[in-house]
Amino acid sequence: MMHTIEDLIQLALQEDIGPGDITTDNLVAPDTRGNGIIVAKQNLVIAGLQVAEKVFKALEPQIDFEALYADGDRITAGSTVVRIDGTLGTLLRGERTALNFIQRLSGIATQARTFVGEVAGTSVKLVDTRKTTPGWRVLEKYAVRIGGAHNHRMGLYDGVLIKDNHIAVSGGITNAVKKVRQKISHLVKVEVETATFEEVKEALAANADIIMLDNMDLEQIRKAVRMIDKKALVEVSGSVTRERLRDLAQTGVDLISIGALTHSAVAVDLSMNIKAN
Amino acid sequence: MMHTIEDLIQLALQEDIGPGDITTDNLVAPDTRGNGIIVAKQNLVIAGLQVAEKVFKALEPQIDFEALYADGDRITAGSTVVRIDGTLGTLLRGERTALNFIQRLSGIATQARTFVGEVAGTSVKLVDTRKTTPGWRVLEKYAVRIGGAHNHRMGLYDGVLIKDNHIAVSGGITNAVKKVRQKISHLVKVEVETATFEEVKEALAANADIIMLDNMDLEQIRKAVRMIDKKALVEVSGSVTRERLRDLAQTGVDLISIGALTHSAVAVDLSMNIKAN
Amino acid sequence: MMHTIEDLIQLALQEDIGPGDITTDNLVAPDTRGNGIIVAKQNLVIAGLQVAEKVFKALEPQIDFEALYADGDRITAGSTVVRIDGTLGTLLRGERTALNFIQRLSGIATQARTFVGEVAGTSVKLVDTRKTTPGWRVLEKYAVRIGGAHNHRMGLYDGVLIKDNHIAVSGGITNAVKKVRQKISHLVKVEVETATFEEVKEALAANADIIMLDNMDLEQIRKAVRMIDKKALVEVSGSVTRERLRDLAQTGVDLISIGALTHSAVAVDLSMNIKAN
Amino acid sequence: MMHTIEDLIQLALQEDIGPGDITTDNLVAPDTRGNGIIVAKQNLVIAGLQVAEKVFKALEPQIDFEALYADGDRITAGSTVVRIDGTLGTLLRGERTALNFIQRLSGIATQARTFVGEVAGTSVKLVDTRKTTPGWRVLEKYAVRIGGAHNHRMGLYDGVLIKDNHIAVSGGITNAVKKVRQKISHLVKVEVETATFEEVKEALAANADIIMLDNMDLEQIRKAVRMIDKKALVEVSGSVTRERLRDLAQTGVDLISIGALTHSAVAVDLSMNIKAN
Amino acid sequence: MMHTIEDLIQLALQEDIGPGDITTDNLVAPDTRGNGIIVAKQNLVIAGLQVAEKVFKALEPQIDFEALYADGDRITAGSTVVRIDGTLGTLLRGERTALNFIQRLSGIATQARTFVGEVAGTSVKLVDTRKTTPGWRVLEKYAVRIGGAHNHRMGLYDGVLIKDNHIAVSGGITNAVKKVRQKISHLVKVEVETATFEEVKEALAANADIIMLDNMDLEQIRKAVRMIDKKALVEVSGSVTRERLRDLAQTGVDLISIGALTHSAVAVDLSMNIKAN
Amino acid sequence: MMHTIEDLIQLALQEDIGPGDITTDNLVAPDTRGNGIIVAKQNLVIAGLQVAEKVFKALEPQIDFEALYADGDRITAGSTVVRIDGTLGTLLRGERTALNFIQRLSGIATQARTFVGEVAGTSVKLVDTRKTTPGWRVLEKYAVRIGGAHNHRMGLYDGVLIKDNHIAVSGGITNAVKKVRQKISHLVKVEVETATFEEVKEALAANADIIMLDNMDLEQIRKAVRMIDKKALVEVSGSVTRERLRDLAQTGVDLISIGALTHSAVAVDLSMNIKAN
Repeated sequence: MMHTIEDLIQLALQEDIGPGDITTDNLVAPDTRGNGIIVAKQNLVIAGLQVAEKVFKALEPQIDFEALYADGDRITAGSTVVRIDGTLGTLLRGERTALNFIQRLSGIATQARTFVGEVAGTSVKLVDTRKTTPGWRVLEKYAVRIGGAHNHRMGLYDGVLIKDNHIAVSGGITNAVKKVRQKISHLVKVEVETATFEEVKEALAANADIIMLDNMDLEQIRKAVRMIDKKALVEVSGSVTRERLRDLAQTGVDLISIGALTHSAVAVDLSMNIKAN
Repeated sequence: MMHTIEDLIQLALQEDIGPGDITTDNLVAPDTRGNGIIVAKQNLVIAGLQVAEKVFKALEPQIDFEALYADGDRITAGSTVVRIDGTLGTLLRGERTALNFIQRLSGIATQARTFVGEVAGTSVKLVDTRKTTPGWRVLEKYAVRIGGAHNHRMGLYDGVLIKDNHIAVSGGITNAVKKVRQKISHLVKVEVETATFEEVKEALAANADIIMLDNMDLEQIRKAVRMIDKKALVEVSGSVTRERLRDLAQTGVDLISIGALTHSAVAVDLSMNIKAN
Repeated sequence: MMHTIEDLIQLALQEDIGPGDITTDNLVAPDTRGNGIIVAKQNLVIAGLQVAEKVFKALEPQIDFEALYADGDRITAGSTVVRIDGTLGTLLRGERTALNFIQRLSGIATQARTFVGEVAGTSVKLVDTRKTTPGWRVLEKYAVRIGGAHNHRMGLYDGVLIKDNHIAVSGGITNAVKKVRQKISHLVKVEVETATFEEVKEALAANADIIMLDNMDLEQIRKAVRMIDKKALVEVSGSVTRERLRDLAQTGVDLISIGALTHSAVAVDLSMNIKAN
Repeated sequence: MMHTIEDLIQLALQEDIGPGDITTDNLVAPDTRGNGIIVAKQNLVIAGLQVAEKVFKALEPQIDFEALYADGDRITAGSTVVRIDGTLGTLLRGERTALNFIQRLSGIATQARTFVGEVAGTSVKLVDTRKTTPGWRVLEKYAVRIGGAHNHRMGLYDGVLIKDNHIAVSGGITNAVKKVRQKISHLVKVEVETATFEEVKEALAANADIIMLDNMDLEQIRKAVRMIDKKALVEVSGSVTRERLRDLAQTGVDLISIGALTHSAVAVDLSMNIKAN
Repeated sequence: MMHTIEDLIQLALQEDIGPGDITTDNLVAPDTRGNGIIVAKQNLVIAGLQVAEKVFKALEPQIDFEALYADGDRITAGSTVVRIDGTLGTLLRGERTALNFIQRLSGIATQARTFVGEVAGTSVKLVDTRKTTPGWRVLEKYAVRIGGAHNHRMGLYDGVLIKDNHIAVSGGITNAVKKVRQKISHLVKVEVETATFEEVKEALAANADIIMLDNMDLEQIRKAVRMIDKKALVEVSGSVTRERLRDLAQTGVDLISIGALTHSAVAVDLSMNIKAN
Repeated sequence: MMHTIEDLIQLALQEDIGPGDITTDNLVAPDTRGNGIIVAKQNLVIAGLQVAEKVFKALEPQIDFEALYADGDRITAGSTVVRIDGTLGTLLRGERTALNFIQRLSGIATQARTFVGEVAGTSVKLVDTRKTTPGWRVLEKYAVRIGGAHNHRMGLYDGVLIKDNHIAVSGGITNAVKKVRQKISHLVKVEVETATFEEVKEALAANADIIMLDNMDLEQIRKAVRMIDKKALVEVSGSVTRERLRDLAQTGVDLISIGALTHSAVAVDLSMNIKAN
């Protein structure tokens, strides 16, 4: 079953708390109140504030959670991002899970912001891939958008991407595009992955909506862009590093897809200071 | 509800495939067979092979999945790690999810192996923390073990860790340790977080099983180790980087806990080559 | 949580069998074997054979279920569609649920085939809507395809459809299209609902991929088709009855969307004859 | 697992909204408020108002949902049935799912009311069958009651219905009734399906609580009613159409069971008019 | 959501094994094989053998589980009831959960057999109540049947039991019976709880199917039985102890309901002897 | 999936109410209000008040539930324990499930209190086992604590207990302890089950944290306690009856584990008196 963010939060709290927080349950009275602040320990782009709020509210619906910033804001090291007022037990039980969410999502947003900065002034869009943490697809793609990059399809269900194997068993690009278009919703576009100029030409002739250039060098990409000549969107893909971004952007392609936006983001540093009232 | 690995795999497949893989469903006949290999694109320590197998078997119970290595093996770039033989549709639908699991878990195992290497020859144990990806606690802690490091508690339920807030509301370390011990199972140990020598002394007097030294410098740690004098296990914690590991290990502490083992691991590079038969 | 077909089958069996089939449990020995055939009681287009198979296999994994036709086949009254061989208890417990699935899905497929027949020889595509039975979206849209009609978007997540309210709060069609396009995946198209020629013009200028003509008469539709002049796909919508289909098809529109394809389909008649061996 | 109405609503919202309503999410600010009315587009008997309310409340717990009629009321075309006041986003996201529920349930209630009208003045009860939409058993049987007809058993667990196969493997009706009665709760009645007068006699002798006459003609039914002579309830079943209802009712039977009450009901027409405030 | 026995087994295994059996996982190689026998440590009536089998098969589908007895058999102390052959790890992980199921269910069956023995030779039926362990309703009622007693209704959904509060708000027994009978399925009987002869008379006049005599003494019960004179089934209820059973049975009542059948049954003693091969 | 108490409550309500309380639904108007009191019918130690509250709140979130005592209080027969004010329908629907929870949990707490009384004045701790009702582990272990006894490990995941089979396949106690300790969290202790003095010696030499003496007589236990001499905790286990408790306690062991604390507790008697307002 596909899950919602609320389901993932329940899973996260269950795997951390399980049958009970044996330290807090035995030392902190249920009615002891406390307050906490979440503080940035480095410069970062914040993402996931509402997820953190949901974590605490799942434990204590009436908790007072006040975000001092909004997702997408740049935060400087030392800033207080959130104030929380509730029972001390909830603050202690929810702290780690809330931070685990916000640290990873902000890590993705922060890195995306940096990558987007590399192509500032060009019209290229940086897009993510399906290389996301299993269970986190919707959240990670959200963080990518918060960081200013864009989303490729959400999954295998909301976009057609015809790859070499699809082409091989369909008798060529032309047949594959035609066959799939007859079956899909008219609201869905068709992208074809190409590795040679020959394939680019065939994809163009087949009226692909988007042509992906897979693992081409800059020279090849420039030539392909000229061949396609705005008749389809052009996406480049394959081992895209931050260093190559600017050069790739200047080839005139429309889209650069980058797995590292999600699979190589690391958590940024935020911590929570809790006090009993 | 706490979930099993099988549940997480179902979530992952659902979020990727959703109502259907509209490319493969429409282009690949259900009975077309294919084969695939998973290849390492860099040197790495492999982890998660059984998870990858479960992904494909969730889609096609009779698929033939042959692992050529076992979790924990070092793999050199270019090596074939797995051979799979099944329907082409299953290979295409499961590829990304299986790789997403194996790439992250192997990333954690590979980094853990490197960290462990830094303290080779000492008796210190490197241990993880609760800074794991929500939903992935059991898997990430498994990958840490595969990499040769050790697990701290799994969650809030299987170990007592008394922190400053617990101490504050319990009237001191002595009271806190005594109170919690009366309530917990006799199979669970009690760890106390300390920041000063005074606290170390009090934890020692309270017969804490483990004393955590939080954010102390090397000199302070050495002094604390001498004070504790084997009467409790000693754990150091706080901003542990790879660079500091060897120095920390040589202070004589028993355990070094490192959030980065999980929160800052990045995916290693593996890819899958698929062919129709 | 989004569910799979297997989940829906479990729900269906649970709501029918609940704590036990008190007639069969008490009268039929668990090892008594039986056989059954599913017979068409009217001419129909069959759909849902695999769902029926899954129902029986959920109750008895080793049951022998042999479909004599494939989904999409036209079946004449009196034909045997399926033979099943298993325990008598399973046949009796699964009969009603399996038939309930197959009768409704075949009802949709049969009606769709009739509707498609009305526009034979034209290039228009008949498409369904989101007016499906809650819980049955994927199955009913599948039956629509089996009947030869096409699918509109699966849900709110895989296609943009800008309606009057979206336009009102976005400051016009142009702004709405531009704003949404910046945010969505490049694989998703944008459709705009229009009720006047003015709106058609604005949608065209905004480069909408598809323009929906809502509740226009034939004359208006013809004029709109000329205005649009192949620069976008044209969909007509609103109170489409079987009688109007041919006229609508001949206006030159690309797509006719019909809620009745799912919301007004009725079950076709199939029955199951069971015998103890 | 058997599900509740709340579960079915969650499934319905998930299959429609999935990872997000990409039109509304990107065009409507979360705090924009709106209002809507649900209007009957034809004469109908309304059913499912509380389900519609639950749909909107599942999306926005504080939404203001005011039903102007109650389930079971006759509504004339053009009447406003419900007023809703909430955020515009919720109105747009919940509209289709709420209508899908209410249109189908009201369709069943409306048709049931018509069927019941055919037997007005007689003492016969019209009862439904297990031919319901999988996943909708409880809701559809509720709509049948709202329309004035009655429920047969909810499933296989709350009533005994001995059919030909049960009789065959039990060595006759007498044995079957005796055997099952020893095992079931004393609160459950036993019904026997019969196709011949011989079987009717045996069922009567076995003290069946209800005797079902399967596919008999009017003459046969009258004769069976005389034979049974109030010593058991009499149910007729099999290809019952609206046209035959009155004649059947006048034979003196107690119950007429009609699959069409649920399997051949079609949605009635209601629509929702939404406006931003 | 209502659960199946398989769901309850999953819950049971999860609450016992959780993230892993840290003893067995670390000491027993996955391929080490073993065998085990389940032995009765006292005389008992066995119940739950199939549940125990399902527990082991949930952990290891191919395990060899051989029951040497069938549910309902009397077992003498010292007898081997089951032989199991599988991996040693599965035997160790499943042992406790399997025994927990079988010990409680056999405890209920054993006690029921004893109670039934007290009324041997009479025609009275001993029936259970709804005083079952939450989550175990279906299993415990099954064990009651295995022990030779009978089931009252399964829950609030499959039988009408009109109690004092229902009567009070309905304006008397007559109205209550009439009102409920118009609404329920014709397969469901109506039982009325009575505490005085006046109420017995009214229930009789209202044609209740069953009349429950609540907390009457033997003399009162005999008188009520004469008043009812076979025109309804008679159930006695309230503080029924094993000692009173025979006297109650001889009053001529049809049914004696006993909460103790489930709420006061204790586990019988069985153990499992496991050996590595 | 591991479940929470809320999940178990949902299961319990579903198995009791299922598709509807056909008595109350048809006789009690939804807005009729009522009140109820839960009364102790015997002397008891109360446990589970919050579970009972959750049962009623699951049916009616705004219900007024006032507990006059707290879990752990001794209650004398005749005392009112809880007052509830809500709709009459909720009181009638929730009564049985709430009582089923509270009666069993209080039964465990009451028995535990008695057992603990037997060892008053000694320093021994009575601990429970894993012999709990499947699905109820967390609740039953809670009731044990409420009764004043202590918890052994919660499951197989939060404590190491090395038994004969683990020893056999590990090449002896020494190897087993060493091997498992290298793998587990440093917060988890290791207990070894022993049946002979030889094994006690080896466990002691292996630095086991706890040594369990299985099925030894008083003399043997006393000798083992002397051998161990406070170098490990000592637990006795095996056929511990209430009668043997005091003698066992006086041997000087630290812990006595008793399966009967959970597997042989019976429900105590509480009832609910409900009135319409």
